[in-house]
Amino acid sequence: MLSTTSRTTLGRSKERGSTDRNDLHEVLDTGLVCHLGVVMNGHPMVVPTGYGRIGETLYLHGSTGATTLRAADGGEVCVTVTHVDGIVLARSVFHHSVNYRSAVIYGRARLVTDPEERMAGLRALSEQLAPGQWDYVRQPNRKELAATAVLALSLEEASVKIRRGAPKDEEEDYDLPVWAGVLPLVTTWGEPEPDPMLPEGIDAPVHILHRE
Amino acid sequence: MLSTTSRTTLGRSKERGSTDRNDLHEVLDTGLVCHLGVVMNGHPMVVPTGYGRIGETLYLHGSTGATTLRAADGGEVCVTVTHVDGIVLARSVFHHSVNYRSAVIYGRARLVTDPEERMAGLRALSEQLAPGQWDYVRQPNRKELAATAVLALSLEEASVKIRRGAPKDEEEDYDLPVWAGVLPLVTTWGEPEPDPMLPEGIDAPVHILHRE
Repeated sequence: MLSTTSRTTLGRSKERGSTDRNDLHEVLDTGLVCHLGVVMNGHPMVVPTGYGRIGETLYLHGSTGATTLRAADGGEVCVTVTHVDGIVLARSVFHHSVNYRSAVIYGRARLVTDPEERMAGLRALSEQLAPGQWDYVRQPNRKELAATAVLALSLEEASVKIRRGAPKDEEEDYDLPVWAGVLPLVTTWGEPEPDPMLPEGIDAPVHILHRE
Repeated sequence: MLSTTSRTTLGRSKERGSTDRNDLHEVLDTGLVCHLGVVMNGHPMVVPTGYGRIGETLYLHGSTGATTLRAADGGEVCVTVTHVDGIVLARSVFHHSVNYRSAVIYGRARLVTDPEERMAGLRALSEQLAPGQWDYVRQPNRKELAATAVLALSLEEASVKIRRGAPKDEEEDYDLPVWAGVLPLVTTWGEPEPDPMLPEGIDAPVHILHRE
């Protein structure tokens, strides 16, 4: 079950809320980037960044010099992951909507210092963005590890919202001679584009060619 | 030209920055949802929401009762729009990256009260999400307008970051027998799914069937 603190109790569209932790995991595990919100000198700052999940912990990373990461270390953060699945085309402008799945996580980020947890977090981040690559390419060396900050965020305080299906119109509008329904947004992987620097004879491995 | 305040001066990966206002407009005009960041009781809050652009103004909307909109009204906000175009598969974990286009806008949101500007803002919001629908479906009535808050945000303080193309690897890694390149992420519109409540004989119009 997901917690319901004052921050994760939904104000609007409560019927879209899910309290199922599996939904939270599903939204996170199928995403590529999150939007990380921090407070910087009193104003909000929102940046897209990668992430990875291990159990009930989300991992973020960045250059040790990155402003956002420094602001996030120890401070309150908000991490949001959103999937847009389609546009809901209603019979009135007012009832137009989006079919989406989104997760919002609140908490204080913790700078990870334990070498094993750092490596596990980086592996989770890498596998989230590019599954199969951690064991296929060169892994981080000492210099690269020293330049990378890893942050951990507990999934304890989180909310999930999901909207699926057809529009909900005003009763009197169902008689309008207007098409209504959903225009799905479909995301797929294209053909891998080889680096121009790639020597001949090196084919893309299956985990890239047939990524789900 | 885009402004360079302390907030929009890029700290990391400066070579990805663009100061071309056309790039800002292009990133915004091709997006569907933004991530709106506000500060709520001292902590950051990031929610996905629709938006529209008219010239150098971004419009946001929401229920007059929505917590986020109330926090955004008059306060500092950050609006971020991100397109993920592909995964950059390098020869080392460290140089993995994402091809993306993102825009970040800072400013104080202004509650729009002028009826004409409110209507223009709502039209821009509607057309961004579902082009062609404003003139096709029933437009907002007095009750719906009263329930909707419209906020305006100037595009004066904004930054754009764009990454395109092949990975950049360490010189010594180019000899590794590893495939490297870009796996493109392709987003397309699926087949329109009619509302089960739709009477027979109403076909989807061209602006839905052939949306670009």
